[in-house]
Amino acid sequence: MKVLVLNCGSSSIKYKLFDMDHKAVIAQGGIEKIGLKDSFLKFTLPGGGKKILEKDIPEHTVGVEFILNTLISPEYGAIKSLDEINAVGHRMVHGGEKFSKSVLLTREVLDAFIACNDLAPLHNPANLKGVNAISAILPDVPQIGVFDTAFHQTMPDYAYLYAVPYGLYEKYGVRRYGFHGTSHRYVSQRVCEFLGVQPEGKKIITCHIGNGGSISAIKDGKCMDTSMGLTPLEGLMMGTRSGDIDAGAVSFIMEKENLDANGVSNLLNKKSGVLGIFGESSDMRDLEAAVAAGNKKAILAENMYFYRIKKYIGAYAAALGGVDIIVFTGGVGENQASARWGACEGLEFMGVKLDAEKNEVHGEEMVISTDDSKVKVVVIPTDEELVIASDTLAILENK
Amino acid sequence: MKVLVLNCGSSSIKYKLFDMDHKAVIAQGGIEKIGLKDSFLKFTLPGGGKKILEKDIPEHTVGVEFILNTLISPEYGAIKSLDEINAVGHRMVHGGEKFSKSVLLTREVLDAFIACNDLAPLHNPANLKGVNAISAILPDVPQIGVFDTAFHQTMPDYAYLYAVPYGLYEKYGVRRYGFHGTSHRYVSQRVCEFLGVQPEGKKIITCHIGNGGSISAIKDGKCMDTSMGLTPLEGLMMGTRSGDIDAGAVSFIMEKENLDANGVSNLLNKKSGVLGIFGESSDMRDLEAAVAAGNKKAILAENMYFYRIKKYIGAYAAALGGVDIIVFTGGVGENQASARWGACEGLEFMGVKLDAEKNEVHGEEMVISTDDSKVKVVVIPTDEELVIASDTLAILENK
Repeated sequence: MKVLVLNCGSSSIKYKLFDMDHKAVIAQGGIEKIGLKDSFLKFTLPGGGKKILEKDIPEHTVGVEFILNTLISPEYGAIKSLDEINAVGHRMVHGGEKFSKSVLLTREVLDAFIACNDLAPLHNPANLKGVNAISAILPDVPQIGVFDTAFHQTMPDYAYLYAVPYGLYEKYGVRRYGFHGTSHRYVSQRVCEFLGVQPEGKKIITCHIGNGGSISAIKDGKCMDTSMGLTPLEGLMMGTRSGDIDAGAVSFIMEKENLDANGVSNLLNKKSGVLGIFGESSDMRDLEAAVAAGNKKAILAENMYFYRIKKYIGAYAAALGGVDIIVFTGGVGENQASARWGACEGLEFMGVKLDAEKNEVHGEEMVISTDDSKVKVVVIPTDEELVIASDTLAILENK
Repeated sequence: MKVLVLNCGSSSIKYKLFDMDHKAVIAQGGIEKIGLKDSFLKFTLPGGGKKILEKDIPEHTVGVEFILNTLISPEYGAIKSLDEINAVGHRMVHGGEKFSKSVLLTREVLDAFIACNDLAPLHNPANLKGVNAISAILPDVPQIGVFDTAFHQTMPDYAYLYAVPYGLYEKYGVRRYGFHGTSHRYVSQRVCEFLGVQPEGKKIITCHIGNGGSISAIKDGKCMDTSMGLTPLEGLMMGTRSGDIDAGAVSFIMEKENLDANGVSNLLNKKSGVLGIFGESSDMRDLEAAVAAGNKKAILAENMYFYRIKKYIGAYAAALGGVDIIVFTGGVGENQASARWGACEGLEFMGVKLDAEKNEVHGEEMVISTDDSKVKVVVIPTDEELVIASDTLAILENK
C-alpha cells in the first residue's frame, strides 16, 4: 500500500510518499513560491541527494501534477505508475468543531471543511486546493483529511472558552481550538509505547517546540488544554509570533502605530516573537549562536522563550493535578538541549529532574530525566506525515 | 498624626481619614457620579450608620472641598479643623517605570506622573485632579503618591517584556507593569508577620481576587511576575474583563463585529469576563447564587474563573521554582470559600492541601491549609488605604 501525504500551504506544497507495508518514506520534497515567478520543486533523490527543478507553477493543480510526474519520472521516480498510489492523505489545518478525527473526504465533508474557512482564511483554502488538484488528476483515488485541530476537540468547555460574550462563540465560533494536534497526538501515544505504559491514568504534557510552538495537557490520552487558541498566535513565544500578550496592549499598539486589525495581526504574527526581541533572526540556531557570542538582546529573547515554556508546564501540571510524563518534540524540542534545560530548570518541586548528560540528545527517542526523577521527561521526534499516512491507511482498510 | 487617603477615579472620589497614632479609620466615604446630575456623597457616620448627601458636584475640586467640609462639619465631622490633617496620601494608578516606591508629590514628580498618562488615560488624569484639588484647598499639606504599579517594578525583564518588536517598548513603554501592587505588597508582607517568618528565602503567590483580579509571584519579598500587564485587562477572568485571550481572537472579533481598537477594548473590558459568559451579572455573589440554582452558564463561568486562577498558581510556582505560601485576598479571595477551594483543588502534587473547615473563613486572617500541608495557604484581608496612610506617614517622618 502506497500513501501520498500532501501538506498544501498558500504558496507551497510539501509531500511524502509512504510505502506503508514498510512504513518507509520512498519519496519526499516540496514546491515553493507557487504563483511567483521563481517557483521550484525541491526533492530528495533516491540516493539521498537533493535536486531542484525550476518551473513556472502558477497554481496548485499544476504543482500537484508536477509532483506526480516527478514521482513516476524514469530519472527520479520512486514508482512506475500513478496507479500505485492507493490513497492520498492531506494535512488540513482548521476543522473547527466539526472534526474530532481523521475522515474520508466526501463532498459533504469538504463542504463542512469549507464552512471553517473563516477560522483559517489563509490555510483552509490552500488545503482545499490540494484536494481539488488530486480529485482532478486522480479522481478514483480516495483522499483522507487529517486535521490539526482534531485531537484538541476533547478539551472541556472551561478550558476552550474565552471569557468574552458567549454570543461570540455561538455566532462565530470564537473559542480555543489549538493546532499541532497531529503532533501532540502522535508523541503522547508514542511516549507511552516507548515507556511501556498505558495512556489511561497518565498525565502528560507535550511540548511541540519549533518555529511555531504549542504545549498540550493530556490526561488518559485525551487533550485537556492546549496553548494555541482560536488562531496559532496564542501561547508560547515563537519564531515570529508574540504568543501571549495583554489584549489591552493589542489595542494600545494599534492606536500608537495607527494599525487596523489586519495590521496588528501582521505585526504580532510576523514581526514579533524571537525576531521582535532579538531583532536579527527568528531562527533558534541563529539565536543560540548570538547567545554564545554574548548578544544581550539574544540572551533576553532566549530567557523569555524558555520562561514561557516553563510557565505553561507549571500551569498544565496544575490543570492536570500533577504530571507523570513531559515530552519534548519539534525542531527545537528534539534538538536543543539548552531549551529543554531552560524550560525544566527549577521544576524539581514538582518532581522534574533532568539528567544533564542524557539531555544532550539530538533528535532521537530518549528519556532525559534522571532515574530518580518522579516525572519522566522524554524526547520523542514527531512525525506528522507518518500519522497522516497511518490514519489514511486505517480509514482505507475500514472503508 | 492624621492622614487623609484619597482614591480619585474619573467620576468618583473615595476617602478614608486615618488617625495613625491608633492606626484607626476615623472617617470614610465616597463621592460618586461626579459631573452627572445625580452626584452624591455617601459616608459612614461616627455611630456606624450610612448617610447620603446629594449635591451637584461638577468636578473634582468641588468634590474634595465637599468631603473636607463634611470632615469638619459640626453634625457629621470627625475632626474640628482642617489643620488637623497632617498629610494626604493618594492612590495613583500608573507610575510606569518611573516609580518603584511611594514618593512625596513635588512638581517634578507630578510631571513624571503626567508623562505616564498615555499608559492609563482614564485613571492618571483623575488621580491628578485629586492632587490638584488638595493643592488648591490645602496648599501647605504635604501630599504623597502611592502607585499601583510600584511594587511590580522588581520584575525581571524576561517576565515583564512582551515578545513584540523591542522598539515598541522603547518608544511607548509597551511592557507588563501590573496593578494592585499596593495590595500584593501588603498581603505578602503581612502574611510573613502573621506566620512569624521572614520574607527572605520565601516563595509566595498572592491572589488578589475581586471584581478585578491579579496574581503575583514573589520571592524574597520582591515581585517576580504578575498577571496584569500593560493594562489591567490581562490575566485572570474578572467581573467584566476577559483576562487572557488569543490576540488573534482580538483581531478576529474586530473584523467580525466591525469594531475599532476602542470598540474591542470596550468589549473586552466591560462586557466580558463573568458577565460575558454568565450573561446576567458580573458580581460573584450573584454568580454563586445562580450556580446554586443550577444555572448552566453560571456553572461554566465559575469553572472558567477557578480554572484560570489554578493555572496561574501552577505557572507561578514553576516560575518561582516552588511555592511556600499562597495568599488569598480581595473581595472574593477573602470571602468566597468555593473560589479558594476551586483554585487549589488538585494542587496536592505541589504540596497544597486545604482544610475544608478552615477554608470556610470569611474576611479574617487565617491559615486555611491543613497542618501537614507543605504549602501554607492563608487568607489575609487586604487594606490598601492603610498601606497608603502608612507610606504617607513614613515619608513624612523621613522628610
